[in-house]
Amino acid sequence: LKIFSLNSNQSLAAEIAQEVGVELGQCTVKQFSDGEIQINIEESIRGCDVFVIQSTCSPVNENLMELLIMVDALKRASAKTINIVMPYYGYARQDRKARAREPITAKLVANLLETAGATRVITLDLHAPQIQGFFDILIDHLMGVPILGEYFLEKGFNNDDIVIVSPDHGGVTRARKLAERMKAPIAIIDKRRPKPNVAEVMNIVGNIDGKIAILIDDIIDTAGTITLAANALVENGAKEVYACCTHPVLSGPAIERIDNSKIKELVVTNSIPLNEDKLIGKISQLSVAPLIGEAI
Amino acid sequence: LKIFSLNSNQSLAAEIAQEVGVELGQCTVKQFSDGEIQINIEESIRGCDVFVIQSTCSPVNENLMELLIMVDALKRASAKTINIVMPYYGYARQDRKARAREPITAKLVANLLETAGATRVITLDLHAPQIQGFFDILIDHLMGVPILGEYFLEKGFNNDDIVIVSPDHGGVTRARKLAERMKAPIAIIDKRRPKPNVAEVMNIVGNIDGKIAILIDDIIDTAGTITLAANALVENGAKEVYACCTHPVLSGPAIERIDNSKIKELVVTNSIPLNEDKLIGKISQLSVAPLIGEAI
Ligand SMILES: Nc1ncnc2c1ncn2[C@@H]1O[C@H](COP(=O)(O)O)[C@@H](O)[C@H]1O
Ligand SMILES: Nc1ncnc2c1ncn2[C@@H]1O[C@H](COP(=O)(O)O)[C@@H](O)[C@H]1O
Repeated sequence: LKIFSLNSNQSLAAEIAQEVGVELGQCTVKQFSDGEIQINIEESIRGCDVFVIQSTCSPVNENLMELLIMVDALKRASAKTINIVMPYYGYARQDRKARAREPITAKLVANLLETAGATRVITLDLHAPQIQGFFDILIDHLMGVPILGEYFLEKGFNNDDIVIVSPDHGGVTRARKLAERMKAPIAIIDKRRPKPNVAEVMNIVGNIDGKIAILIDDIIDTAGTITLAANALVENGAKEVYACCTHPVLSGPAIERIDNSKIKELVVTNSIPLNEDKLIGKISQLSVAPLIGEAI
Repeated sequence: LKIFSLNSNQSLAAEIAQEVGVELGQCTVKQFSDGEIQINIEESIRGCDVFVIQSTCSPVNENLMELLIMVDALKRASAKTINIVMPYYGYARQDRKARAREPITAKLVANLLETAGATRVITLDLHAPQIQGFFDILIDHLMGVPILGEYFLEKGFNNDDIVIVSPDHGGVTRARKLAERMKAPIAIIDKRRPKPNVAEVMNIVGNIDGKIAILIDDIIDTAGTITLAANALVENGAKEVYACCTHPVLSGPAIERIDNSKIKELVVTNSIPLNEDKLIGKISQLSVAPLIGEAI
């Protein structure tokens, strides 16, 4: 068993290797002068079960090509199995044709990984669980909810004051799972546009009055949804608002919005690493290394 | 028949559409806030023969993913055939395992294009013609030599003073082709390292004394080879040195090297577009639009 790290998620990869009790494999991943990726695997992997750690977070296209080229190199170096550990699956939101003549890029990515030679994929909280069915190879789908729930429980959030809130209809199942772990009730933010070109109304279904609300989503990207939801909760009587998600994409105005919002603390995992400039005081990052180590 | 342009080579695409006598198809290629590519095709292409113009020049990974996602969208929108026009084929230099445990990325790219749904590829001067065999779909392999030769002939370079020079052993066949068109003799630069850690000796095979030398290569990337060759030719008695290539990658120190070299004029094609900062006075760019227009 060998574990290799590419460039997206090196400190998580080091943690995973430690969990599993092996050294990270030696490989060089560089760019030629013109920007083409150059990969060289520095140790024999013939007949080995190889695990490659790479999230396809930003820069998504670089990270994906790095991964595909690495898989090609491993295949040609006679790896026995090639297991991709992709804590964050990029392009997962393009999982259907929402309009005519759109691509289904999440399926394309699955096909590309198979074509390159992957034999198994380990991933975490896919935007839609149906993406598992995009693969003909083995896929392990891990869940971030237990890690997030554990964190809040250890914080002492285990009394009647808590309510778990889904920021939209699509996330109710996820909120339900966290609520079960935390033995708390749920609420749902029910956005509705009364007429075209009129601002959305944030209607809250469920009782949040005087409670500590925990918002949960899978991905927080530009943080528009989650910060509007947090502010609506406070306006409607919540005592405090926390938020959590598995994948902190946090692009564009996200950090500014979170900083200026009513969110007291945002809890995320390290499926996507956060640079210094994103690690503001309000954000706590939990490691998925134990979870992934176990799956390996 | 419909022609679409992606982002790498928009002015060439416009020229090609004009050659063929159609309007460019309408499509939107943007990025989401997190850098994921978003493509929407704005007109029906059901049952059409669709041509997509995209070189995989720098940023190579972005351009390649754009192309793959576009092909996926075209396939799902029921195109009859999906023809990729790739004037420059990125990753072509990774066409074999030069060392143990290297990828063969040129083959990976071929597989990815087929997986996405391409039915035919039209390309120009592949770094190795063997890359044609990496495809199971139709491939058209066009040649830049006639365009380059025509330019020099029109310049009046058609007398006994001319010699065509290959900057290395690998390029002799290409030099031979240009020499035939121009009815000129050839010479070869024969680099040799007498002992390890001793500078290379540039030995010139063939008569260049008092002649106008035209260096030819397929790709000029960092321009190390070509500028050293040019200077060696002048030192060994060439009257003037011109250079030409099909693909002006021109990365890193290339422009500075060319500017400071003995090369009088560098003639390239527009298989890769050149930004303002690369279009120095010494460089002339010829269009491959007529050549590609004919192949379509
Ligand atoms: N990277 C992205 N950033 C923002 N929106 C996206 C992205 N990828 C896909 N989408 C859009 O997000 C929607 C899917 O989100 P959802 O309705 O939550 O499943 C689709 O309409 C997509 O067009
Ligand atoms: N993008 C690139 N930039 C520079 N060198 C490359 C690139 N891609 C591949 N190579 C190397 O160039 C060599 C192939 O060049 P050639 O010997 O001219 O076919 C191989 O040893 C490759 O490792």
